Amino acid sequence: MFLPEWMQNYQKAQLSGDLIAGIIVAVVLVPQSMAYGMLAGLPPEVALYSSTLPLILYAAFGSSRTLAVGPVGLMSLMTGATIIELDIIHVTEMVTAAHTLALLVGIILLLMRLVRLGAIINFLSHPVISGFVSASAIIIALSQMKHIFGLDIPRGLPAYETFYRTITQAPQSNPITLIIGTFSLLLLWWFKTPLVGLLKKRGTSEEVVQFISKSGPLIAVAFSTLTVYYLNLDSQHGVSIIGHIPPGLPDIILPSLNPELIKHLLPNALLIALIGYLESISIAKSMASQKRQKIDSNKELVGLGTANIASAIAGGYPVAGGFGRSMVNFSAGANSPFSSIITACLVGLTLAVLTPLFFFLPKAALGAIIVLAVLPLIDIHTLKQAWGYDRTDAFSMLITFFTVLVIDVESGIIAGVLMSIGLYLHRSSQPHIAIVGQVGNTEHYRNINRHTVKTDKEILAIRVDENLYFANTNYLEDTIMRLVADNQSINHVVLICSSISFIDTSALESLDDILYRLEKAGIRLHLTEIKGPVMDKLRDTEFLKKIGEENIFLSTHQAMSSLKTAN
Amino acid sequence: MFLPEWMQNYQKAQLSGDLIAGIIVAVVLVPQSMAYGMLAGLPPEVALYSSTLPLILYAAFGSSRTLAVGPVGLMSLMTGATIIELDIIHVTEMVTAAHTLALLVGIILLLMRLVRLGAIINFLSHPVISGFVSASAIIIALSQMKHIFGLDIPRGLPAYETFYRTITQAPQSNPITLIIGTFSLLLLWWFKTPLVGLLKKRGTSEEVVQFISKSGPLIAVAFSTLTVYYLNLDSQHGVSIIGHIPPGLPDIILPSLNPELIKHLLPNALLIALIGYLESISIAKSMASQKRQKIDSNKELVGLGTANIASAIAGGYPVAGGFGRSMVNFSAGANSPFSSIITACLVGLTLAVLTPLFFFLPKAALGAIIVLAVLPLIDIHTLKQAWGYDRTDAFSMLITFFTVLVIDVESGIIAGVLMSIGLYLHRSSQPHIAIVGQVGNTEHYRNINRHTVKTDKEILAIRVDENLYFANTNYLEDTIMRLVADNQSINHVVLICSSISFIDTSALESLDDILYRLEKAGIRLHLTEIKGPVMDKLRDTEFLKKIGEENIFLSTHQAMSSLKTAN
Repeated sequence: MFLPEWMQNYQKAQLSGDLIAGIIVAVVLVPQSMAYGMLAGLPPEVALYSSTLPLILYAAFGSSRTLAVGPVGLMSLMTGATIIELDIIHVTEMVTAAHTLALLVGIILLLMRLVRLGAIINFLSHPVISGFVSASAIIIALSQMKHIFGLDIPRGLPAYETFYRTITQAPQSNPITLIIGTFSLLLLWWFKTPLVGLLKKRGTSEEVVQFISKSGPLIAVAFSTLTVYYLNLDSQHGVSIIGHIPPGLPDIILPSLNPELIKHLLPNALLIALIGYLESISIAKSMASQKRQKIDSNKELVGLGTANIASAIAGGYPVAGGFGRSMVNFSAGANSPFSSIITACLVGLTLAVLTPLFFFLPKAALGAIIVLAVLPLIDIHTLKQAWGYDRTDAFSMLITFFTVLVIDVESGIIAGVLMSIGLYLHRSSQPHIAIVGQVGNTEHYRNINRHTVKTDKEILAIRVDENLYFANTNYLEDTIMRLVADNQSINHVVLICSSISFIDTSALESLDDILYRLEKAGIRLHLTEIKGPVMDKLRDTEFLKKIGEENIFLSTHQAMSSLKTAN
Repeated sequence: MFLPEWMQNYQKAQLSGDLIAGIIVAVVLVPQSMAYGMLAGLPPEVALYSSTLPLILYAAFGSSRTLAVGPVGLMSLMTGATIIELDIIHVTEMVTAAHTLALLVGIILLLMRLVRLGAIINFLSHPVISGFVSASAIIIALSQMKHIFGLDIPRGLPAYETFYRTITQAPQSNPITLIIGTFSLLLLWWFKTPLVGLLKKRGTSEEVVQFISKSGPLIAVAFSTLTVYYLNLDSQHGVSIIGHIPPGLPDIILPSLNPELIKHLLPNALLIALIGYLESISIAKSMASQKRQKIDSNKELVGLGTANIASAIAGGYPVAGGFGRSMVNFSAGANSPFSSIITACLVGLTLAVLTPLFFFLPKAALGAIIVLAVLPLIDIHTLKQAWGYDRTDAFSMLITFFTVLVIDVESGIIAGVLMSIGLYLHRSSQPHIAIVGQVGNTEHYRNINRHTVKTDKEILAIRVDENLYFANTNYLEDTIMRLVADNQSINHVVLICSSISFIDTSALESLDDILYRLEKAGIRLHLTEIKGPVMDKLRDTEFLKKIGEENIFLSTHQAMSSLKTAN
């Protein structure tokens, strides 16, 4: 019988950890889901449905034991933006689009598994991701201000426009809403930081601290809901509330496959799939390594793909692994994906019987939950670090950041990726080329600009610190030709290949060309320290015949000694 | 006074070489120009105008002493294709478009000089260029078949369509035209190969052989023109002839600057500028190195840019350095750009007084000249070499080749460039990572899969043969984590950095991550053989503080010895 590995080897001792972790995650997940649903512009039940079946499917097919799947901030933002682009008004149509989007995301992830394209996320460099995440966090936080201020600002505006309207309309805020929002923010912040310090000082056990701290959102939700309910703040003071959530578990139904809709959603679905996968696998990896477990990126694609398809048919929207929740799960002692199954059941239970309790839940409290969840994502540290370490990386980061803020998430990511690839190619197209000389009477040869070394006026010994490929062969050729043109006494060029792991066809032709041009000028070319795999490929080439085996040396010192003797 | 360097230092002894070379090039250039003009779908005088002023401007601003500028095959093909896309019927409008195109190409080249973007041609790999040139040569040769067969096939069809129509309409050929065409082909071929052999056998001096061999096109032109004239082949047998060429030198006039036209021409102008620059600089470099002279790529951009602007205002179309002509110039003994000025004057003289002589020149003879000029460009050798040396390069080449043939030149180049960059990134994203061990009792450490070496079960020593950057950091991280997960006895990981010339911000964070993850698993990380420039950048990072100076070793042997002692 087919069962996931963790289920086959399940031990009783794992149960208590899984149970506790499953319950704590559910406590975090219910209010967070509703908040993210609001961020995506979808009814709260859609987000709650996303927190049921997908968790079970990921438990069956994913490779991380502790990743907590469900609605997450970035994907909610991107889903919201995607749906707004469709220009539809009816909520039911928006919900259908969200289901279809989740289905597409799931299918794309499975296809990525099939054609082994998971590695494509490697082309998102850390600075680009950081710039994108920081800007998205700002956009998300800004988008919640209207809920906290009680303002009526349309969704989907550019970030600066949202900011401007929030500022200019602030005087028309709903004061009661603003009080609830501010109070929720303070409460959440207090649970997150001062309370943790207090409890730790008192010597409360780590697990209890975790539990209490993570229940902040639930307490904010409960407190603000009760306040609204007892003081009639909704009807008498116009405080926006969640309202009716249809009770009961989701229907299992395949979303409509409207080709026109699919065509519109596809480009964004691709990006959402990539970002979701990137987020999930990063979290999964960082947790797995702490227990010296492995994450199989292929299984991860299947787990996340099936989870999204499950979300689609359970009436949800795109899901991924969430950082905060996964950490809660991990540190609360989850031993296996069974904890996620428990979470899913508890969310299901909530849907079945508890939805009436959320009727008076003010949107301001949910806005505050989102703001507190995304603020830590604004990452100044990476910018500082990149600025100090590598200015071009800092530049890619800023470009991504501002493009996301000023234009949109998609353009920002694309600009960042293109820029980092372009900068990398530019860098590798002008490799570091060192002229080297002998250190004392040793067999070591080092850069003449960094060390006191001896050189021979007839011999030019250079080391190229980069693989040779089409983009840098001209640079190498030009550098060598310039060096020999500048120094007419040179009769030998020794090319040290210790850093060259790969020579492509263009570079091979270029070497042939260099050989020919040097020969025409009466100069002999020699190669030293060619790596094994490079030599294997060179062995049958015409170039090797032309240069002659006698001009290939194992070490630079051998080459230099034999050339000096010959002179 | 401002004078080019070569003029300031001109010596009498250089004159005879320049004179002879200048005359020979003119002999080659006049018929070739008219043929290329026909290829571009432009009247012959436009191509002849392109062979006057541009040569003088290049002599003044270019950096090659022997590059022969003028109309060339590739650019004529691309110019023709560009003009056809405009859907204009009147020849005068087509000619205006050609002038504007030359002006844009010239301005683009000067702008490339200004913003130092000349290096962009480095991203055209040899296989991509070879695939593009071969396919273009086939398109050009096919396009001339109608002239040789005397058929009426429209220009600008896809290559397969031209081929198909030529084959199916072959029975309706004009037999006299076909005879002239075939005879011209044979004559040109005979001058190119058997005659050279004969003359060399007889001991004729190299220069005379050159001169006689290169006059083939002129003789084919003269012979076929006289035949048509004396036998009235044009009026009585329908042989297509060049007809009236307006006599006299070109008017110097700025081409119209119609914004609509410029918008349409711009994308192609960009590509034509790149290809023209690429072709010119390759030829210039290969000649310069034989005399140990330098080519300044910046001056080259200025030379070619002003030459194209000159072509625009002298009533011509885009120009570049031609391979065949430049070789003729070089081997006929040209010492300086003065030879080009002589060529320009002779073409001017031809325009002034000799144009009536070309009235009866049959187009079939010009078609034959083009076919013989482009056939050697079909490059099977590079494909064979790439196929044997590096299959992925061969693949890029074939993609470029077929895209050019089936779609068009522009798409082919773009597909080829994207593909070669993609393949390179893919390659560098999965670097060669070797586990190394000690060779005997030496200080050398080598790949355990290639050499008989000793390893320590507690120490994992690995060498990464690639710079660390965003696209391969995950791969490195995964490889290390997999290796330590597979072997629970490992307590130390030694990362040998001898092939790493560059660590970007993503890779730095990834190293930090690896350090953290290894530490969590109770494993210590050590680095050895870090290069000078890499260490310079690492010095102030948090990562270096975290890993600890004591875990950075100069050599792998030092690291291994000290770790063994510690154990």
